Amino acid sequence: MNTKIIIDTMGADGGVDVILSGAALALQKHPELTFVLTGDKNTISRKCSDLDIQQQRVEIINATDEITNYDRPAEALFHKTDSSMLMGLQTLSAREDCFGMVSCGNTGVLLSGAAKWLLNSDRQRPALAALLPSENGGFTCVVDTGATVDCTASMLVHFARLGNDLMRQMYGIEQPRIGLLSNGAEPTKGNCLTKEVHSLLRADEDLRFVGNIEGNNALSGACDVLVCDGFAGNQVLKVTEGTIRRMIKDMMEYAERTDSLEIKRLCRHLVSLYDITSLGGAIVLGTRKPIIKAHGNANEKTIVSVSEMLLNMAQHKTAFDGYREG
Amino acid sequence: MNTKIIIDTMGADGGVDVILSGAALALQKHPELTFVLTGDKNTISRKCSDLDIQQQRVEIINATDEITNYDRPAEALFHKTDSSMLMGLQTLSAREDCFGMVSCGNTGVLLSGAAKWLLNSDRQRPALAALLPSENGGFTCVVDTGATVDCTASMLVHFARLGNDLMRQMYGIEQPRIGLLSNGAEPTKGNCLTKEVHSLLRADEDLRFVGNIEGNNALSGACDVLVCDGFAGNQVLKVTEGTIRRMIKDMMEYAERTDSLEIKRLCRHLVSLYDITSLGGAIVLGTRKPIIKAHGNANEKTIVSVSEMLLNMAQHKTAFDGYREG
Repeated sequence: MNTKIIIDTMGADGGVDVILSGAALALQKHPELTFVLTGDKNTISRKCSDLDIQQQRVEIINATDEITNYDRPAEALFHKTDSSMLMGLQTLSAREDCFGMVSCGNTGVLLSGAAKWLLNSDRQRPALAALLPSENGGFTCVVDTGATVDCTASMLVHFARLGNDLMRQMYGIEQPRIGLLSNGAEPTKGNCLTKEVHSLLRADEDLRFVGNIEGNNALSGACDVLVCDGFAGNQVLKVTEGTIRRMIKDMMEYAERTDSLEIKRLCRHLVSLYDITSLGGAIVLGTRKPIIKAHGNANEKTIVSVSEMLLNMAQHKTAFDGYREG
Repeated sequence: MNTKIIIDTMGADGGVDVILSGAALALQKHPELTFVLTGDKNTISRKCSDLDIQQQRVEIINATDEITNYDRPAEALFHKTDSSMLMGLQTLSAREDCFGMVSCGNTGVLLSGAAKWLLNSDRQRPALAALLPSENGGFTCVVDTGATVDCTASMLVHFARLGNDLMRQMYGIEQPRIGLLSNGAEPTKGNCLTKEVHSLLRADEDLRFVGNIEGNNALSGACDVLVCDGFAGNQVLKVTEGTIRRMIKDMMEYAERTDSLEIKRLCRHLVSLYDITSLGGAIVLGTRKPIIKAHGNANEKTIVSVSEMLLNMAQHKTAFDGYREG
């Protein structure tokens, strides 16, 4: 089955080069994949030919403008509709043959654009989920990780449903275990928001709620979906990232000091095990078609890995309305 | 200078044995230290004599009742005033010769008891700070880590002041750098609460505010005091803990697989470097005298280490009203 994915070639720290090198690798690896690339047509064509990318496997949509990290969503949606990111979203919305999209750019603008052109039938604001490898193998879906930082209880219940659908359809987990991030495992622990959400989730017969999860078990594998407001979820994601970076740095220093080959080998093993940057990105949930927000500092492996996430979704049918209909 | 510290001998997962073995080690190491031990007098006397603890260096206050993790603060304060924890707090409040107190027990009851008997002159609810080793050496004071999970902006400014005083007086940092935990470094990033706090802190001439700090830099050393509401601060603390535990487990498994002595040695090095349990505990701020909430799963090293924190505070004059007056 052919799968066509849109890639916004702008917005990555490493520029268009990184994106296209990654795209070339993904195309080599997956013959069923084709790309629609949005951005500066001349630059993209030149680089595609440098990289020996077959012309029939990429389509280029020229976009003259670029969304930066300083753009505010409301203004960008008004003034920059011909940017590579927003052209991508409009194309994704309009064209049936496009399955999903990847962008490394401004998260706020991406979410607002997704809400404008690709909102799901329930009309709720999209959420941003991260699929992180859990301690016991498998993945934990953390939702929300920053799309909405001031949440009501019903929003968190909605996040639970979105994560539930994703894990069921993407990994075939029949009844995903839904956990609620809190500051204590007991049902009485939490802030006002999580206490209210706790009782709503417990009363919800469609969801398999496993109770509160503390931060030290966020990624232990105690739940398949970790529900949290976007502010707290952002901390789970970034504190994990920061701690990993720090421990690997400490080990590298130790390896240098002891000049041990074995430890250098271990460091490489851990770097690959915990390489969150290459791992991919956050998934926009609540849209008709899947959109992945990749890290700003994405590398080539990131592009391969997010393409594979989308391929995986395409193969497994997904929680996205637009595709279910297709 | 002699320093007398109260230890609640109940409430640790390892029971009174761990506490007293730790106390014995601390007494050996620090001749200027004496303890007031609250708990079951018979048990404590017997174990002290088993451990060869000199009688003149410990005083025992008999407490028949015990606070458990199931006790609710309001009820415990009413019904369990003769528990080891609350006897400790009352003693700390009443006796001038006692410098501070340590408990491994129920955090909620400890904070409420502290608020009842040892509140600072500003009459604000105490906060719970954690002093964590930062990436560039030194310590970062994370405040609040769970005492108040639903916060107003003025509470967070108060936390900033408490942390500021602690770092200035305990480590002699003249103008501690105050950071605000948020989901983005830009001033416009954050939830409603942090945006309001951001402008209050920026306008505050007494504090050296260095702006928003993201989770991946929470402990990088970018600030001396990391201000956050108790819910988010609890995540910083526990997600860090969980990530460390997980990485060390992965390394241990790798060491077993490769049967490498060097890597086993590295694991031990990292375990000691990142041993949060032994490191100590959270400091109750906003009280007249210092109180340390040690981990429930405290070990002997924890007791030594929290005793040393209190000794350090006693030597450096501290941010605690009760002691300043002394």
